[in-house]
Amino acid sequence: MKINGNRLACDFNYVNSQSATELGCTRLSYSLEDMKVRKYIIDELKKLGTQISVDSVGNIRAKYNPANLSTKSLLIGSHIDTVPNGGKYDGLTGTLCSLEAIRVLHENNVELKHPVELVIFAEEEGSNFGVTMIGSKYMAKKLSLEDLKKLYNDKNQTAYEYIQERGFTFNSEQDNFVDGKDELAMIELHVEQGGVLDKKGFSLGIVQAIAGMNTIQMKLKGVSNHAGTTPMNYRKDSLLAASEMIYKMSKIAEDYETAVITVGKISVSPNASNVIAAETIFNVDIRDVVQENINIISKQVESLCIEIALQRDVEIEVKLIGSSKVVHMDESLVNIIEEQANINNLSNMRMNSGAVHDNAMLNGIIPTAMIFVPSIGGISHSPYEDTKYIDIIAGAELLLFTVMKI
Amino acid sequence: MKINGNRLACDFNYVNSQSATELGCTRLSYSLEDMKVRKYIIDELKKLGTQISVDSVGNIRAKYNPANLSTKSLLIGSHIDTVPNGGKYDGLTGTLCSLEAIRVLHENNVELKHPVELVIFAEEEGSNFGVTMIGSKYMAKKLSLEDLKKLYNDKNQTAYEYIQERGFTFNSEQDNFVDGKDELAMIELHVEQGGVLDKKGFSLGIVQAIAGMNTIQMKLKGVSNHAGTTPMNYRKDSLLAASEMIYKMSKIAEDYETAVITVGKISVSPNASNVIAAETIFNVDIRDVVQENINIISKQVESLCIEIALQRDVEIEVKLIGSSKVVHMDESLVNIIEEQANINNLSNMRMNSGAVHDNAMLNGIIPTAMIFVPSIGGISHSPYEDTKYIDIIAGAELLLFTVMKI
Repeated sequence: MKINGNRLACDFNYVNSQSATELGCTRLSYSLEDMKVRKYIIDELKKLGTQISVDSVGNIRAKYNPANLSTKSLLIGSHIDTVPNGGKYDGLTGTLCSLEAIRVLHENNVELKHPVELVIFAEEEGSNFGVTMIGSKYMAKKLSLEDLKKLYNDKNQTAYEYIQERGFTFNSEQDNFVDGKDELAMIELHVEQGGVLDKKGFSLGIVQAIAGMNTIQMKLKGVSNHAGTTPMNYRKDSLLAASEMIYKMSKIAEDYETAVITVGKISVSPNASNVIAAETIFNVDIRDVVQENINIISKQVESLCIEIALQRDVEIEVKLIGSSKVVHMDESLVNIIEEQANINNLSNMRMNSGAVHDNAMLNGIIPTAMIFVPSIGGISHSPYEDTKYIDIIAGAELLLFTVMKI
Repeated sequence: MKINGNRLACDFNYVNSQSATELGCTRLSYSLEDMKVRKYIIDELKKLGTQISVDSVGNIRAKYNPANLSTKSLLIGSHIDTVPNGGKYDGLTGTLCSLEAIRVLHENNVELKHPVELVIFAEEEGSNFGVTMIGSKYMAKKLSLEDLKKLYNDKNQTAYEYIQERGFTFNSEQDNFVDGKDELAMIELHVEQGGVLDKKGFSLGIVQAIAGMNTIQMKLKGVSNHAGTTPMNYRKDSLLAASEMIYKMSKIAEDYETAVITVGKISVSPNASNVIAAETIFNVDIRDVVQENINIISKQVESLCIEIALQRDVEIEVKLIGSSKVVHMDESLVNIIEEQANINNLSNMRMNSGAVHDNAMLNGIIPTAMIFVPSIGGISHSPYEDTKYIDIIAGAELLLFTVMKI
């Protein structure tokens, strides 16, 4: 029994051709491109005799249950939306590998103990309303239709209005939420979005935990003065203070094995070459798979910044603007997947995920696990995102055999 | 013989009332506000019997020569334009103090050896076309009317078109350039725009040199990656590299008595909280009154940045985007002004200027000197700019007595 690599390649080619930009793909949830791709995948799923439902926010669930079992479903799948001008793989990889796995089960009339359900989560990337994983949050009842009234797109339309305008009927009473009554577990396949597998030369990653995160905003207020006329020791330079903070906080990460600290966003005012920066605002993104570390590092970063602000006579406001907890994958699922990978001779390593994924929203309700395929050079959310095709097939194979094992 | 403080205060009040914004003043050259203020000052100058000319770009020269002397003129004056929402003093201070000095000469029928000429330079701030000191550059033949065709305002209109549209007739053959044949020297009074006089408690600064400057643009290219999924040691983080550079280069300035190094402008791409910065561009503004130091510091900054870029595996492009030489004030003029200040019991100190001023454009053609009055807290180009009125009167007095001495 084998994954059909050509068939899977055709899926990738067709889907990406429907949403191609000059270099990569743009396929925002609810867009015309998204609609075309939904139709293609639903048509493919119908050929397999799956029972398909689409909920209020556009999550697709397709239940493959040829033997009419009454046992709980094993969920597989991911998302199909991209960031603007994103790459060809990302969540699509997990979705198409799951589709292909069900095709192989179907053409081989494989007998299963549990129905298999392909889940395609809507609006994972947050490209429409700035909030990620709307679909999986809704499915896990972590976000309601009412909440959509508070989210706006860049045309100042609420998610509540926009999603309905794009053809989805809001009726939460008929929606199929995940509560563990009908769902056994979820396995999501996704590209790594980091460079660990690529650097270490493994085809597959078996995820143990998804890192938690604190996002802290630092707002520094100095005094705007002429760059020529203000001696160094009279300055209250907010950008110089920020630079010292960013440089020194990167060294804090060195003491922790799995932690990362990133400053990727900064804004300076008045932002003129010859004017000392009055105000500098930057966000610190702190992640680790050890929850305690996130808290300790956040405190260390805060203390460091306050100390530097004091020394440089700059006012500082520290504000936690985002936070998510560490999510642990189900240990027995992880073991099953790992054993299966070894049985199939697929090169693999255990690893952690620095990014949050849809299945983390279901974690705690049902057991979840993840399989990663490599991102070449760690490049993600970019038209230059790439994954070797042979690794994608390995991922689909591991997913297929794990489903059969379960 | 005394400066009439009330009369001078009325000038300030009237001029600023014509161009007041909620907090400060906006008086761009060639604007309606500028026109009103020009008319007011020209009317005042006519009352003193001065001979007035306005050149192609709007520079005003008003020659006070009641005795019809054929000797060279002593130039005094400054500019009247402001940055958008600027303060009440800046260049206006020198202009109004000069006007008041001529008034006192006039009402006391003071006998002079040289005519005194009030010069009001147009477009010093560069608020219209992004290029400063257009008026004084034109008067010193460092910029021609043809050059104005290459400068654009934010409505994409050339300076060549715009200035004519605002009512100025271009005729360079009739314009009164400064070539030293008719001009003895220039003394400009201006606010310090830095905090030295205020911190040290002096009323007046006698400028010895205007700092030279190098502006160096650093363009760093790293790799944009997910902030969660990329371990610290796999990163090519352009913003982290920039932060280390900005922090460490500030320490270079400590080795030089009068040097300043400023980074006030930075742009980061993609500038997202959870994405490692692919590209960071920032400008380094290096100034000193010792020309040799500017060159040495520029080399040090460049070496430092290249070394850090290498260590962090980030590409770097170093580009000199602006440069001006150190300008030395005329030593004998400086001595005359200093002696006069001491005779008049006006608290004063010798100092340097970190900012460039109109008179620096004339320096090299004729001897120039400057008198500074304090900027409280060093605040400049801001609605919060302030100078004690008693210090402005002291400045006007020193200017008046220096003119009489010469």
